[in-house]
Amino acid sequence: MAERTSTGFLDSVLDRTLGNLRAAWRDLSATARVAVGAPPRPDLPEEDAQRLHGQMRDCLDGKGGEVSARLRAAELGRAYLALSAVGRERFLRMLATEFDRDPDAVRNAAAALVAADPADYAKAERALARSLDAPRLKLLRQFNGLDQGVKFLVDLRAELLPLARRDGDLAALDADLHGLLASWFDVGFLDLRRITWEAPAALLEKLIAYEAVHAIRGWDDLKNRLEADRRCFAFFHPRMPDEPLIFVEVALVNGISDRIAPLLDETAPVADPKSADTAIFYSISNCQRGLDGISFGNFLIKQVVDLLASELRNLKTFATLSPVPGFRAWLEARTAEHDLASMLKPAEAAALAAATHGLAGRLPELLEADDWIERPALADALRAPLERLCAGYLATLRPQRRRALDPVAHFHLTNGARIERLDWLADPTAKGLRQSYGMMVNYLYRLDSIDANHEAYRGEGRISMSSTIRALAKG
Amino acid sequence: MAERTSTGFLDSVLDRTLGNLRAAWRDLSATARVAVGAPPRPDLPEEDAQRLHGQMRDCLDGKGGEVSARLRAAELGRAYLALSAVGRERFLRMLATEFDRDPDAVRNAAAALVAADPADYAKAERALARSLDAPRLKLLRQFNGLDQGVKFLVDLRAELLPLARRDGDLAALDADLHGLLASWFDVGFLDLRRITWEAPAALLEKLIAYEAVHAIRGWDDLKNRLEADRRCFAFFHPRMPDEPLIFVEVALVNGISDRIAPLLDETAPVADPKSADTAIFYSISNCQRGLDGISFGNFLIKQVVDLLASELRNLKTFATLSPVPGFRAWLEARTAEHDLASMLKPAEAAALAAATHGLAGRLPELLEADDWIERPALADALRAPLERLCAGYLATLRPQRRRALDPVAHFHLTNGARIERLDWLADPTAKGLRQSYGMMVNYLYRLDSIDANHEAYRGEGRISMSSTIRALAKG
Amino acid sequence: MAERTSTGFLDSVLDRTLGNLRAAWRDLSATARVAVGAPPRPDLPEEDAQRLHGQMRDCLDGKGGEVSARLRAAELGRAYLALSAVGRERFLRMLATEFDRDPDAVRNAAAALVAADPADYAKAERALARSLDAPRLKLLRQFNGLDQGVKFLVDLRAELLPLARRDGDLAALDADLHGLLASWFDVGFLDLRRITWEAPAALLEKLIAYEAVHAIRGWDDLKNRLEADRRCFAFFHPRMPDEPLIFVEVALVNGISDRIAPLLDETAPVADPKSADTAIFYSISNCQRGLDGISFGNFLIKQVVDLLASELRNLKTFATLSPVPGFRAWLEARTAEHDLASMLKPAEAAALAAATHGLAGRLPELLEADDWIERPALADALRAPLERLCAGYLATLRPQRRRALDPVAHFHLTNGARIERLDWLADPTAKGLRQSYGMMVNYLYRLDSIDANHEAYRGEGRISMSSTIRALAKG
Amino acid sequence: MAERTSTGFLDSVLDRTLGNLRAAWRDLSATARVAVGAPPRPDLPEEDAQRLHGQMRDCLDGKGGEVSARLRAAELGRAYLALSAVGRERFLRMLATEFDRDPDAVRNAAAALVAADPADYAKAERALARSLDAPRLKLLRQFNGLDQGVKFLVDLRAELLPLARRDGDLAALDADLHGLLASWFDVGFLDLRRITWEAPAALLEKLIAYEAVHAIRGWDDLKNRLEADRRCFAFFHPRMPDEPLIFVEVALVNGISDRIAPLLDETAPVADPKSADTAIFYSISNCQRGLDGISFGNFLIKQVVDLLASELRNLKTFATLSPVPGFRAWLEARTAEHDLASMLKPAEAAALAAATHGLAGRLPELLEADDWIERPALADALRAPLERLCAGYLATLRPQRRRALDPVAHFHLTNGARIERLDWLADPTAKGLRQSYGMMVNYLYRLDSIDANHEAYRGEGRISMSSTIRALAKG
Repeated sequence: MAERTSTGFLDSVLDRTLGNLRAAWRDLSATARVAVGAPPRPDLPEEDAQRLHGQMRDCLDGKGGEVSARLRAAELGRAYLALSAVGRERFLRMLATEFDRDPDAVRNAAAALVAADPADYAKAERALARSLDAPRLKLLRQFNGLDQGVKFLVDLRAELLPLARRDGDLAALDADLHGLLASWFDVGFLDLRRITWEAPAALLEKLIAYEAVHAIRGWDDLKNRLEADRRCFAFFHPRMPDEPLIFVEVALVNGISDRIAPLLDETAPVADPKSADTAIFYSISNCQRGLDGISFGNFLIKQVVDLLASELRNLKTFATLSPVPGFRAWLEARTAEHDLASMLKPAEAAALAAATHGLAGRLPELLEADDWIERPALADALRAPLERLCAGYLATLRPQRRRALDPVAHFHLTNGARIERLDWLADPTAKGLRQSYGMMVNYLYRLDSIDANHEAYRGEGRISMSSTIRALAKG
Repeated sequence: MAERTSTGFLDSVLDRTLGNLRAAWRDLSATARVAVGAPPRPDLPEEDAQRLHGQMRDCLDGKGGEVSARLRAAELGRAYLALSAVGRERFLRMLATEFDRDPDAVRNAAAALVAADPADYAKAERALARSLDAPRLKLLRQFNGLDQGVKFLVDLRAELLPLARRDGDLAALDADLHGLLASWFDVGFLDLRRITWEAPAALLEKLIAYEAVHAIRGWDDLKNRLEADRRCFAFFHPRMPDEPLIFVEVALVNGISDRIAPLLDETAPVADPKSADTAIFYSISNCQRGLDGISFGNFLIKQVVDLLASELRNLKTFATLSPVPGFRAWLEARTAEHDLASMLKPAEAAALAAATHGLAGRLPELLEADDWIERPALADALRAPLERLCAGYLATLRPQRRRALDPVAHFHLTNGARIERLDWLADPTAKGLRQSYGMMVNYLYRLDSIDANHEAYRGEGRISMSSTIRALAKG
Repeated sequence: MAERTSTGFLDSVLDRTLGNLRAAWRDLSATARVAVGAPPRPDLPEEDAQRLHGQMRDCLDGKGGEVSARLRAAELGRAYLALSAVGRERFLRMLATEFDRDPDAVRNAAAALVAADPADYAKAERALARSLDAPRLKLLRQFNGLDQGVKFLVDLRAELLPLARRDGDLAALDADLHGLLASWFDVGFLDLRRITWEAPAALLEKLIAYEAVHAIRGWDDLKNRLEADRRCFAFFHPRMPDEPLIFVEVALVNGISDRIAPLLDETAPVADPKSADTAIFYSISNCQRGLDGISFGNFLIKQVVDLLASELRNLKTFATLSPVPGFRAWLEARTAEHDLASMLKPAEAAALAAATHGLAGRLPELLEADDWIERPALADALRAPLERLCAGYLATLRPQRRRALDPVAHFHLTNGARIERLDWLADPTAKGLRQSYGMMVNYLYRLDSIDANHEAYRGEGRISMSSTIRALAKG
Repeated sequence: MAERTSTGFLDSVLDRTLGNLRAAWRDLSATARVAVGAPPRPDLPEEDAQRLHGQMRDCLDGKGGEVSARLRAAELGRAYLALSAVGRERFLRMLATEFDRDPDAVRNAAAALVAADPADYAKAERALARSLDAPRLKLLRQFNGLDQGVKFLVDLRAELLPLARRDGDLAALDADLHGLLASWFDVGFLDLRRITWEAPAALLEKLIAYEAVHAIRGWDDLKNRLEADRRCFAFFHPRMPDEPLIFVEVALVNGISDRIAPLLDETAPVADPKSADTAIFYSISNCQRGLDGISFGNFLIKQVVDLLASELRNLKTFATLSPVPGFRAWLEARTAEHDLASMLKPAEAAALAAATHGLAGRLPELLEADDWIERPALADALRAPLERLCAGYLATLRPQRRRALDPVAHFHLTNGARIERLDWLADPTAKGLRQSYGMMVNYLYRLDSIDANHEAYRGEGRISMSSTIRALAKG
């Protein structure tokens, strides 16, 4: 699973999100028939902000009934989309600060509950709960019935998230929005759909845009990933039927794949899926930045495993071919503190010395420059220590939080998989080298031990792994 | 709009609900694969209750991951369905009392918030909100992803409601469940669909079962209500696609209908809908007892008016032909206190005396026995006082709550309609006589005054009515 | 398989067909925009006939292009529907005689071909084929693109058929129409669909109307026939998507059914289809009188057998429970010539004498009056001779045509089934007694001998039957 | 409309067709379960041909019933696909010669008809018709019920067509196949569907492959042609639901377009379709080479005009922007005979002399080399004579056949359009220059004169044109 973590990436998400919002609103606007004057000026000067504030107030008061309230919400949405980045931040801040819970009311209700005698307790509790229901939440909920309204909120949160990281008020607004979306996007409400080459082009182009692990290079590449010996599944929300939330790509093969290139080779012949014994999950991408923190991956993998197992009786093995996004950064951080040489075993050091013709001291440089990949002897010598160190990395928990250091490892371990195998030079692309010196990992999903693995990891922080990995990790 | 209020009706709802639950679970059970031993005995003796309690606990702990938790929820559902009425009440009580919020935790969190200084306030508020999230809610939410799981909860609430009326703990459980369902069934998530004779028989037979205003006598009656000069619309939830939530029946006619019989006449010729100038909403039925207190009718009527107005350009008038369910009971309550004679105007009294041949004193009896309907002269004499009293009844608000006495009037007034006309003997069936001496009412929806009417009624308790009704009501 | 053969039945078909045509044309008319004056008078007097003749001519000339020609065809259809029975016959006769092939042209083309030398033969053959293409066929083909146009032709042929039986010109028209419909309704163009209780009511009511073997008594009866342990399949044509062409009803049971009543019992519990070992085809009905002579039943049964075999792995036996529509009439014809007594074996005669208390001479009367069914002893005594005679009847071929006497037997034998078992009193209803003294037959479809059975029957007139039936038939 | 006429093109069609057939058969083969031994060797040596011949015979004899016959047809299809080009031609020849009508039988039947007296004429006619029904037709019809079977026949005809041009037997086979496909693909059986960016990618990639007028350069180009201000419609056959038969591309613009480039410009902003006053049909492509000679274009255009007129009320003008594929070849043929100079008017000659600086004698060379397009003065001077000559060309009928010289002109004139305007340098691409020195034509479809135009053209060979074109053509 690829986590999108770089800041640069966030910016492009933001740009795309803005585009999405605008497109969405073209449709949305058609449903609105409540005239509320001119749209605000882009930077939302004070005067226009006052007017918007009044509209929000009206929307909450329910003037004219619930249908009118929804139309007013549409107006607010349209206003938001007409704003510049500056104006939007002002809009969000207004929502955060002016339509928050009333802290005095909360405090009073809390005090009343503390003082309540048993007979009045239930009433006091209800009153307290009511005092905690923020007006802005009521406002946001109005959007769900508008065409594209749910998508609007998801995209709005994508814009809110980076701002919320550095501002308490916006963080509180984000917490409300997160809660609202988490309840709407409960996995029970989602539809799992298989995506094939028969799917609408309008949907398929989104896969190209959203793929986050192994970039899709064009329509031919995409078609190859949807051939008869491949599977692609995604979750959808009934109110965003054209927008995948998360999707997984699976290759039906024989034996556990140890390299990514054959899976992406458009010229490879299409195999008969019925004869495959192994399903390789080689890419999982979250599509909606605005749903960050709401997890679907666990459900997606389990349901896809179930579906495949019942469709293709020959399938015996379900495994991933996954990146190790954090290994190289982790190793570089360590070598900044300790000499790399000090981490090598004598035999490893000797082999490296031979392969580098005595220039072992320049090892960090050679690693840094990715040059070694062109020198077979050096690459051979590097394999043993890098695999050993990587296995150790994968088997390491963060000190306090009892979760694996590597985010992809954490994801699959939480789901009940075990670390099965390291694949040397499975992804020798620039990206693969940058993340993990080209190594990839197979995580294995065994139906009969998923629950136990999950419990062991979550409860005791015990990481499930094959004996090979364990031996490697122990060095 | 028909409210289902009689106790007898509740029982039949309960029976039907049980049937629904059982049918639902046949499907649901297929998805469950977590073995948890034998189902409990029907009356849920203590020992079995202990076991169930453990299962609920496991389900909340998330042992084995979220997917397993959902399967455990399915097991719990199946267990519930295996229980007798006694066992179910025990099950619900266990859910209500053992998985409630922890009052000490709530109290402590409340006290902490009261004492918090501004810097810690946000954190204290979040902690307080968390303490108010009842474990039973988390348990109930697990059902949404199961086949028929949402329907299970709706039906479970239908069983809970009568029990909750006489028990505080169950009432608190109901409040949680109501909140959960209200958020899931937000009108923004619902689909409005037209229902025609092309709809699945499996859906149409539900209309027959759920119709609550003018009983559907069979498939021919139903077909007549779905002909080209009729419209039927219903709301559906994406997770209950075969279950209407509420439906409305509309006749496309010329002029506002003043009798119900022609609308239900299967032998009447089918008119050309394009030439109709009036849409008569003659029946609205809520279908899911378990969604009591969650309102769809307002949205349904407005959306249907919009749809019809854009489909059929000739339509100028949108009105109802509605029962007056509370008039007779209200009048009988008043005549139990005051002599009926004292309510009559001199001219009315004189006409009645003539028509009853001096037996005016026996008027209450005659009214009581519904005999007058057979005596044209008497019926004529009764028309003036009954219409006058009925108009007065309709125009009356409840003392404290500023809502109309009559529930159907309250519904349409809240929606922004106005009371347009009384229809004498519009429904001379036994039911019509029992409710309102055979009178019906037209409520008029005028697109340009819906909002103002709604505001006037909701804000100031002002009831919109035609000048005729106003004159009648003033007597 | 039920053939609809009674004349009375034809009349009701005709009535229904007229109704269908009218309904069809309501839709069709919407597409027509070529004004051609007033519709003809109902009986089509000469003057109006002349006008229609001109329209037909224009339609064939293709004036205004092909689209206009189709609109003219719609006008002709509408004109036809406005006619009385007298007018329609005139219309059909005009089509038959005025738009036939030109016999002189055919004769000349034939003579030219006879005289052609080899080099010109191909050209002569093409010219001859062209001369045989009747103008009326070109006219009829125009209807296929109109809404309901194909259904119009099918219904038109239903009206033509009884007339064609007594008129050579109309018979020739029917032959053309038969050929056209046979090519359009080639089984390769049909869709096989399963029909369930989820099907549109508008379709299901047609099953009620079209069922020809065991009348469907209402919606509850129909629902029972669509329960989980039943299957219903029908063929549809893409241009008549709401009209079944033929449908079959199947019960999933254990063991071969020997009585019809349990299959039609609405109160019987629904069985688990997965545990059934036998599929009983208990009703096949042709729906479109206008497609007489175009056979779908063979394909329907084989495809349904295939579908069921692949869906339900436990099914081992595929058999029918079929009527014997011709047995009683056949026997009565024989007893009109020969004394029934002379057909009895001594033991049979003795048993009957005992059971009738010496009144054996009144046997024909007793049989005639259906009284014996009430007298168990007599019924017991009748069983042996009736079963024997019936088996003999079923095993008998028509003298010249090498087909079984019984039409249902002929149908299933042609399909490759074998006569498996006689079921005594399997259908003791008035209809069952009238057809075959209450007996029914199981025809068995064994996948591994269907082809051989078919060949033996079609090629050599050899009837496949079980040893029991063979022994019975031999007496 | 683009006719595909170059021989080179045929080859590529053939290649693609072979690919299609192979893909088709992957699916088809799944339905076949009649084992008939090994597939034939690619070149179909005599021995294997004998075996195939036997299979064809069995298929016709109906051995084992109709279902078996279809499975045998599938086997034959599979055998065909396993053959090389040599083998296929042998296969087709066998079908043509061994399963033709029996000429002796035809001759005898013809003689019998000639000799028949009136009473026997009808019978003789039926016998003659039967003798003309070729066995190979019965064989070919078997394919319609197989998955992809109809597509198989269409592709088989695509392969047959080039062979049939030089062989009488194969031409006769093609005539039969043409007749069969013409009846199956009658426009009344086709579905008209709008194609948008929401269509399956598997369908859209076929548009890219089949576009024959202005090549689609990739997915972005395609997307541009499916934007909100564009329309694309295609005909489909129910048994080839994923294969467009013909499609048309329309741009919604203001004013009649006079250049193709703006319509294909991916960077142009998307206009509001509701404000467009003109629909420009800028591309029509036939997709199935195997349906050559079966015309859909007329129906397609008229139905699309109807659909657009009812969807977009602002549309007032329906016109094409069409190539003139035959003009340059026609002019070059004429200049090969006559000196170009002799065709010029004095003013034109003078202008050209000035623009060519006295090198007017080299005009043919300059035209030949397409150099003039780079020289504005020369291009200006060429405009008048080329437009005049082109208008003359368009207005010219073929001597005998009373159809326009230009195939695209013939197509639109047959449909009832008129020649409206010549567009100078509307398509200055290499292809545009090669066809018509970059000129294009607008054909205008006026709803109120389509029928009259069609009649005038078809009946009297009168070409409808605007006064401008008429003036130009007259010179």
